[in-house]
Formats: sequence, C-alpha cells, structure tokens
Amino acid sequence: MMELLNDEYYMRLAIQLAAGASGQTGINPVVGCVLVKDGRIIGMGAHLKRGTAHAEIHALQMAGSEAEGSTAYVTLEPCSHFGITPPCSDRLIHEKVKRVVVGSTDPNPLVAGQGVERLKQHGVEVETGVLAEECLQLNEMFNHFIMSRLPFVTMKTASTLDGKIASRTGDSKWITGAESRAYVHTLRHRHQAIMVGIGTVLADDPQLTTRLDVPALHPIRIIVDSRLRLPLEAKVVSDRTAETIVLTTSHAPELKKQQLEAAGVTVLVCGEDERVDLLKAMELLGGRDIASILLEGGGALNGAMLEQRLVHKTQLFFAPKIIGGGKLAPDNMQFNGFAYMKDAIHLERTTVEQFGEDICITGYPRYSSEAR
Amino acid sequence: MMELLNDEYYMRLAIQLAAGASGQTGINPVVGCVLVKDGRIIGMGAHLKRGTAHAEIHALQMAGSEAEGSTAYVTLEPCSHFGITPPCSDRLIHEKVKRVVVGSTDPNPLVAGQGVERLKQHGVEVETGVLAEECLQLNEMFNHFIMSRLPFVTMKTASTLDGKIASRTGDSKWITGAESRAYVHTLRHRHQAIMVGIGTVLADDPQLTTRLDVPALHPIRIIVDSRLRLPLEAKVVSDRTAETIVLTTSHAPELKKQQLEAAGVTVLVCGEDERVDLLKAMELLGGRDIASILLEGGGALNGAMLEQRLVHKTQLFFAPKIIGGGKLAPDNMQFNGFAYMKDAIHLERTTVEQFGEDICITGYPRYSSEAR
Repeated sequence: MMELLNDEYYMRLAIQLAAGASGQTGINPVVGCVLVKDGRIIGMGAHLKRGTAHAEIHALQMAGSEAEGSTAYVTLEPCSHFGITPPCSDRLIHEKVKRVVVGSTDPNPLVAGQGVERLKQHGVEVETGVLAEECLQLNEMFNHFIMSRLPFVTMKTASTLDGKIASRTGDSKWITGAESRAYVHTLRHRHQAIMVGIGTVLADDPQLTTRLDVPALHPIRIIVDSRLRLPLEAKVVSDRTAETIVLTTSHAPELKKQQLEAAGVTVLVCGEDERVDLLKAMELLGGRDIASILLEGGGALNGAMLEQRLVHKTQLFFAPKIIGGGKLAPDNMQFNGFAYMKDAIHLERTTVEQFGEDICITGYPRYSSEAR
Repeated sequence: MMELLNDEYYMRLAIQLAAGASGQTGINPVVGCVLVKDGRIIGMGAHLKRGTAHAEIHALQMAGSEAEGSTAYVTLEPCSHFGITPPCSDRLIHEKVKRVVVGSTDPNPLVAGQGVERLKQHGVEVETGVLAEECLQLNEMFNHFIMSRLPFVTMKTASTLDGKIASRTGDSKWITGAESRAYVHTLRHRHQAIMVGIGTVLADDPQLTTRLDVPALHPIRIIVDSRLRLPLEAKVVSDRTAETIVLTTSHAPELKKQQLEAAGVTVLVCGEDERVDLLKAMELLGGRDIASILLEGGGALNGAMLEQRLVHKTQLFFAPKIIGGGKLAPDNMQFNGFAYMKDAIHLERTTVEQFGEDICITGYPRYSSEAR
C-alpha cells in the first residue's frame, strides 16, 4: 500500500489505535482518535475501558493547549449525548478543534448524525465516510449488539479435513497446531464470553480461560446444560478465575441450581422445553450486557446455534489431517440441516488465512429464507 | 520473480513446454527441451504422445543444421536405451550438441544417470539438477508408477464446510461453483482414468467424461462394483465415449459379467472377498498401463482407498456452505479411521488455492506406520 500523507493516512492510524483495544471495551465500541495540526500529530487516543474517557478526550489531553485549530480524525462519530461521560462533540467544540474527520457514523439510527450535526452547528468543518468500511468492521460486534440487543456470536471450530472434531474414540488432542490454538486464545480475549455445551465440560473439564504469552482478559464462561449436569468440582465452577453462567431449563433440579449458585455460578432458566431455548438465552445474555460470544462447540451446540440462526461469524480451522471414524467420530456442526443444497447456509465475505500448517476460513453466514 | 537470462531461465521454458502436454503422454513422462545457441533459442520441443518423438528430437528438428555447438535444456535426463524410439542421448551426440543441462535424472534407479554418463563419454558437457524439484514435480504421477507399477491416485472431493458431499435428501447439485467444476474437468484431462463407486453411478448416471470449452481427453472410466449392479443402460456403458472398466469380485453374477463384456466393458475380478480388493485392483490397473487415476468418490470409496493407503495426492474442494444433516448427510471420506488423533493421515506439502468462492486444499497423504 502506498503511504500517502492524507486524510486516510491519519484515519488508518486512528483505526490501529482502536483495533489495539479490541476486546477490552465490553459493550462499548472501540474508537481511535488522532489530532493533527500544522503537519504534525499533536495527540492520539483510544477508548480503553467502558466508563472511562473516550478516544477524543485522551487525544485532546495529550494535545493540551495546542488543540485549537487542529484536525481530529475519529473512527466513530463523536457522541453528542451524556452517557457515563459528557459528550465528546461538546469537548471538541470547546477546545476549538477546526475540522473533524469521521470514519463511520453511529450505527444506531436513532442517534446517527447527531454528533456530526452538533459539530457543524458550532462551525466545525466535518467530513464523514473516510475509510468508513474499515471503521465499521472494527465494531462489527458492537454494531450488531447495539441494534439487536443480542450478542454477536462467532463460531470457532477446529476440524480435520473430513469435518471431525475428534476420533471415533473421542481423542481430540490435538487437531490443530500451536499457532491456531494461540490465535483462539486471542479470540477469547476479544469476546466478552465463551460458550460451550455441557458435553465438552464433562469430557474435557476445560478452564475456558485465555492463556497467552502476555496477560489477557478471560471471557465469561457460558455453559449450555439443560439438566444441570455440571459437576460442582468442574474447573469452570471451582477455579473462580472468571464468571460462569449456566444456561438451563425449567426442568433442571432445583437443588443443583442452588448448589451452583452457592458456588458463585449464575444459573439462567431459558424456557420450558427439554432443550435450552437458545434465542431466549441470547436475549437474557444480551440483557446482561454481553455483546459478544465466542462459540466453541461441540458439534451439537454449534449445530443448534446455526439452526436457530444465532451465529453471525465463523472462524473454521482445518488441520491438514484425515481421521476417519464415520458416524462414530463427531462432526464439527451437527444439526438436521437442509433438504436442498441451494438452501445451505452460505458464508459470505470469506477469507482464508494460514496458521502454521492449518487454515482458517472466516465468513459471515447468510441464512436462506426458505430453508428447512 | 526476477527474469534473469541464465540456465534456469531456459529450463523454466522447457518446464512450461512439458507442463502444457500434461495428461496427453499416457504412461510416458512429460518432457520439455529448449535448444540455445549464440544467445538465441534455436529449437523447442515437447514429448506429446507415447510412441512418438521425444522432446529432444522435436527441438533438434526445429534447429536443423544449427544444432551443432548448441546447449540443450531438458527437463528429464535424455534416454540412453532403445524403447519405442531410439535413444535421445545418441541423437544429441550425433548432432554435436555441445552442452546438455538436465533438470531431473531418471526416477528409475536402474537407469538413472546412464543417459548423462553416455553424453559425458562422448565429450558433451553435462550439468544436472537445474530446477530439479520442479522437473520432478512435473512427473509426480509417472515417477510413482515407474517405481511401483501401481497407479498414482489423486483423490478429489467437493464438500461443504461441515464435510458433506450431499444433503440429507441426497441433493448435491451443486456444492462447488463453476470455476471449481471446470478445474475438475481439467484434472480429468490430466489423469488416464477416473474412478467412482457404483453408488455414484446408480444415483447420478454420470458420463464421467471431460467437458471443457476446448476439446480434451476423456479418462478411462473405472467403476468399483462388487456385485455388478451396473445397469447396461448406464451412460458409462452405453455411450461408448471412453473405455469403461468395472472392478468386481468373484461373487459377481457370471451372466451380468458376460452382458457387460458384450457391451464393450472390461470386467476385472479383484479378489474373492465381499468387497473389491482395492490393492489387487490397483495391481491389475497398473498392469494395464494405467499410471494415474482421479478418484472422485463417493465417500465410502474415498474412505476405502484411504484405508488401504492407495491415495497419493488429495485435491479437496470446499464450498463456503454449511448443509447440516448429521448422520443422514454423507461425509466426504467414510472409513473406520484411527483411534488417536496422532495417527491421523497427515497431508504434507499442502497448498490452498481459491476457485471463485471455493477453496481447494492440495496435499500429499502421509500414513502413520502405527495407525489403526
């Protein structure tokens, strides 16, 4: 890419600032801001944590008295309302910033454009839509949540080339290589929660924490467990490393529910069917300000989430291996599926990356309207 | 890649000449030859068809009287024995070629180096090993066959990302897109035979011919059919577009065998078990000078071939789709497989290519010595 000093050059830097904070702003968007005056960068900022200063404020503080007459590059339209912090558009006006270049406008149509309007009313030059697509992509999870109040779900699988997530004897250590597995822990850092089926917990007693060479954030652990089979000794209950939420049904035994709650676990009753009502579950989780979930299967849970159209992004790792095992070896996504190939879930905007010997196919499911 | 005029420059051209003829030389290798003198190319040639002139001869004929004192670039060591045609090394000597640059030596250790030796004995300068790996790769199928007398088998699959080759109702049209399917027909042109299970024939009544925008070669059609269920009206029997070979067992009904043979089909009895003895089948096919087979499944046949370690290369196409269907939808490779992930078949030298929206993973299976 040609490095040409222009609006996109500074916006790209603002995007990098924002992207660096991916995963640490909870249900807030990541935002980056760069302040430029007389040909020099005079301030940089990023929103780092919900409830703390926005990107613009950090950048203005770095600039100090120099802010007057400067140009601000912001990946997201400055806010115009009092939230936990005062509106950034007012602060930009107050500091006499001359020009504001905006990446993407607010994804919420109820407030979209209001920040820009307020700036203009106070004589600030505003330009919008610079690297808008990249800026929107930064907050794909936040944008989904803010509109639907349901968590954005990324389904991650790790399979052989015959689509298996374990051998016929259940052996699954390891399918993918070290590079893929390290990346999955990065994905955990970038999601507010991780979700697995009770089968995975009973089989592997996993920690479901983020383990990397640097300290990282642990996701909230969500276990789908319709009959509350989760043992009190399971690591996700006993280690207290991160919050644990169990999704169950009204059929779950009350005593076990109380025991789990006494052990610090949150138990959410999702419907009265035999199986957990996953849409209901997503509503409850969204209501608890969980905006993003990394779904790490088993195949039955992956399939059920796909069936309910609750998966928004897929990151499918394939190791260059063939394990066989026919019907005895579990598939990566198990569900009744579709009668006709034309109705298959279609992954859009797919990209392929290599991780060591493995590949990862990233895509966004489009669900056929007719499909059953 | 930097285009520097040197030995590799001319060898690369010779490789391109050879590669162009891939698929049309039967059990002979593809070979390219470029003759250079005083800074100009004076001749080019490729071996085009078994029983006709070798690459060197074509190039020498193009050069005519200019050949004396020239340098010959040949992708494969010139032959030194009388086969269907006289030895090329003698002809190079006779035409007073000054220097011969060889890509790869003959893969057969019984004759490897003999052509080079003969040239040297007659005062010709010889250099070997220029782009040797690329030159060997050109003839990966021939090299395997010449050493083992068994066909080189390329397994091609076309699956969804959940490893299915059809929906639960059997629908499979289409999984992959037009680009992938056109490439598969190119693969057919490049193999001497195509192999499918009787299930595929009964389900789809395919032609198994090569259909491209330009005329191309049809592979010999091989049907694995232990009980000779192949209908006489099936296209592979009745259309007479290409030779058809049926692999069966001694349990097959004699009458049906005679009917198929009367219809022009070759029936090979491969063992006395219930199922076709696939190793025996490969021996019989190799004995009939079939050096390369494109294996196009079904999943059961793909699995059986993998189980017998008879697959040498894989080209696995994946469409960006998820179809579901659990145990009702057929997997791309069905076999009992391995108890432990460490024993999985490992694809080596994998590469990933995009064909439209699809990807193709190419690799070379390495079978674990312990695996069962």
